[in-house]
Amino acid sequence: MKIDAPRQYVIDNLKYALNPSSIAVVGASRYSSKVGYKVIEGLKNWGYKGTIYPVNPRANQIGGLRAYKTILDIPGPVDLVFVAVPAHLVKMVLEHAVTKKAKIVVIATSAFKEIGRVDLQDRLTQFCRDSRLPLIGPNLVGMGSPYLNFNCGFIPYLPIKGPVAMISQSGANLLAALGASKTTNFGMSFFVGLGNKADVDFSEFIVYAENDSNTKCLAIYLEGMDSPEAFIKACRSVVPKKPVVTIKVGGSQIGVKAAFAHTASENQGTSDDYFDKIFEQCGAIRATTWQEFLDISLALGMQPELKGDRIVMITNGGGSGLLSCDHFERCGVPMHELKVMSPNLGQRIRTYMPMFGSPLNPVDIAGTASPVQYKGALRQAMRDSNVDMVYCSICPTAVTDVPAVVDVAIEMYDTYKYLGKPFVMECQGGAECHEAIMKLRDHGIPAYPTPEQAVNAIVALRKYAKIKEKLAKR
Amino acid sequence: MKIDAPRQYVIDNLKYALNPSSIAVVGASRYSSKVGYKVIEGLKNWGYKGTIYPVNPRANQIGGLRAYKTILDIPGPVDLVFVAVPAHLVKMVLEHAVTKKAKIVVIATSAFKEIGRVDLQDRLTQFCRDSRLPLIGPNLVGMGSPYLNFNCGFIPYLPIKGPVAMISQSGANLLAALGASKTTNFGMSFFVGLGNKADVDFSEFIVYAENDSNTKCLAIYLEGMDSPEAFIKACRSVVPKKPVVTIKVGGSQIGVKAAFAHTASENQGTSDDYFDKIFEQCGAIRATTWQEFLDISLALGMQPELKGDRIVMITNGGGSGLLSCDHFERCGVPMHELKVMSPNLGQRIRTYMPMFGSPLNPVDIAGTASPVQYKGALRQAMRDSNVDMVYCSICPTAVTDVPAVVDVAIEMYDTYKYLGKPFVMECQGGAECHEAIMKLRDHGIPAYPTPEQAVNAIVALRKYAKIKEKLAKR
Repeated sequence: MKIDAPRQYVIDNLKYALNPSSIAVVGASRYSSKVGYKVIEGLKNWGYKGTIYPVNPRANQIGGLRAYKTILDIPGPVDLVFVAVPAHLVKMVLEHAVTKKAKIVVIATSAFKEIGRVDLQDRLTQFCRDSRLPLIGPNLVGMGSPYLNFNCGFIPYLPIKGPVAMISQSGANLLAALGASKTTNFGMSFFVGLGNKADVDFSEFIVYAENDSNTKCLAIYLEGMDSPEAFIKACRSVVPKKPVVTIKVGGSQIGVKAAFAHTASENQGTSDDYFDKIFEQCGAIRATTWQEFLDISLALGMQPELKGDRIVMITNGGGSGLLSCDHFERCGVPMHELKVMSPNLGQRIRTYMPMFGSPLNPVDIAGTASPVQYKGALRQAMRDSNVDMVYCSICPTAVTDVPAVVDVAIEMYDTYKYLGKPFVMECQGGAECHEAIMKLRDHGIPAYPTPEQAVNAIVALRKYAKIKEKLAKR
Repeated sequence: MKIDAPRQYVIDNLKYALNPSSIAVVGASRYSSKVGYKVIEGLKNWGYKGTIYPVNPRANQIGGLRAYKTILDIPGPVDLVFVAVPAHLVKMVLEHAVTKKAKIVVIATSAFKEIGRVDLQDRLTQFCRDSRLPLIGPNLVGMGSPYLNFNCGFIPYLPIKGPVAMISQSGANLLAALGASKTTNFGMSFFVGLGNKADVDFSEFIVYAENDSNTKCLAIYLEGMDSPEAFIKACRSVVPKKPVVTIKVGGSQIGVKAAFAHTASENQGTSDDYFDKIFEQCGAIRATTWQEFLDISLALGMQPELKGDRIVMITNGGGSGLLSCDHFERCGVPMHELKVMSPNLGQRIRTYMPMFGSPLNPVDIAGTASPVQYKGALRQAMRDSNVDMVYCSICPTAVTDVPAVVDVAIEMYDTYKYLGKPFVMECQGGAECHEAIMKLRDHGIPAYPTPEQAVNAIVALRKYAKIKEKLAKR
């Protein structure tokens, strides 16, 4: 339901969604395949240190914990009420939560507005608003944070620690990102599923993320937007400090219906252009594909914005250079020749390549490139005041020492980080390239397995700089 | 250098590039870091059973093999001459190769036309043409085939066996694909680097691939095209039988120069539109990004073309459904609602989902979907004569048994394969999703880690059907 601006009482209580002292799990189950069991199991397994109160009228004990018939029977205070009972029982649970003075309620249960029960959902939402009890959901998967060892929902993964806060209406896509977090070194500060977002809105989590010190970038998956004014207000506040990446689905003809069937999101009468304008107004960077959404969020979370378009690419593969420079131009950020950017840089880099290399830009130091040659070329480019950023690519030829080049790249990055220029890498190939990407990401360097992914990341860093400039002028 | 059509004497001799009885390695080295050593090491390690003749005027033995001062000193016949000596020595080697009646010559050496030595390269090419000795290269990385245990060049990987023949001007990109072959289950029939393609042209390898029984799809990376007529002729011949996928780089302003510096490819005066027209004329499917190039080549190599646009998507994740249907529309292949395609299909599939699922299309059988529900839904959709193909997606929720769903998908695919409809899968998430993709690919099912990649693959299957229809009408 629409709001005009992020509400302060909601924002104040969101901390209880991610860091509650006590949780009542209503609909707790004794059967290990049930959602109401998985929630408690997840909380315990991932290291939750607060108090868990299983609520189930037909059980005395669940998962080794004492169970209660209703929330009202719980002896101590309850911060968070997690609801996993059928839809028709939810109203009663909310009444109990209000009586119990719970701080926030999370409804995982499905079968509300998304299957046509608009009135039911709206009534519950209005009840919570009248009672000033923030409601997250319904129809969601859960939330958590690796910094708090907190995983509350039916979520089989906790992501690794990192810079990206992910706010998603879709449970499945959120789960996909969480599942890939460890295998791709994609670190998160916290994550939350919003589902039907009946009450608590994107905007309120955006303000929350603005104040979360672990969050360096916000990544938001939207299926619909009830409150564009609130979204714009929240983004305008956070974007000068932290970048916001969005992916908005449901813009296709069939997608309008699918978004309603999934999370009751209303897109009738809107279009992709409509959302482009909203995102442009508030300085959010919109991704098109899911991969791009992840890739640019990581770069924006790890690296400073790119203040100019003087990008030098150092590669041992002419092919990856060509894929890159074509894609830069396609994205509206064409590369420039070294000789145009910095008269002597080409000559200085020439020292670190064979005669059949090319100091054009992309700078092709050739398939024979050694770690020493990489180091020299990277150093020359990184410290050149006419260069805004260096983009480095490694292709595994028969003579390439991939791990050694990775170490050199990390060393040069650490040496020249103080200059405040971004650094992005690409490493395409097999197992040793995957290892390289993992290690680079571990050191805060966004690294990718294809040239176009790296270029998308760099283009986003450039976009963010332009957005900041534009917002500063207002 | 330009040719008007694929030349028969070249095509006849290309078999010696991939399946020679004997190889002379000119520039063989005793030092293990040198290219001239890596070639011999690679041939032996990957299981080459023919005779290897190292050629080096200053060595008697290399890698345990007797070495010869020149090709002319070799006692037996020589099919393939692999050249890794400096550019100024190549002319003499070619003269010896002609005298020795070698069948084909491969020049790995760089520093020809790509650094401005146009005349030198053209003279060598003309000499080979006058002598009817096909020349591959110069400035290339090598070639091989997993079916022949053959890996000739400085290439640290042999790909797994599979349907895709990869023909690439870039060594680095080819190496990236070879390196990822095993880690992503991307199978190849053979691969070849063409480098500067001074003599042997794409078109001649296209005709070779047409006759290679292991090849089901051709994947061609181009930086330039000297002989468009020959390319069109070759494609027109193969495309009705086997799909051709291309990726053409060097179209950007700086890319024109970079393509020349890399493989002496000339793109002055051409444009991306120019190549779009060539590919359209001859029925080649052009990919934009490297990832798309790989993804659609695999699908076209594994699956039949998609004869209509009645695509049913079965998923347990509404979000992946939305990403998919939006991307289908973006690619010009919009999805249709089940009720429009097949009046009773929705009702039949309803049996296999909870009440909060959606039989719209994408068919969202919900995050709680069991293998039994997947099986029922897949069966209903696959055997429906109003359905042209099924696209199945798995998202790992807390209750999803990913391996069991994979087994069910494989079982249904095997059961209904005889209907000749394509099948594509998507499985986004962590380690178990990677395992799922590997297993599915092992069973001939193209599977991908993001919805948009799967959709790109399906769109390519549809394009190929339209291309075949169009060519059949001519």
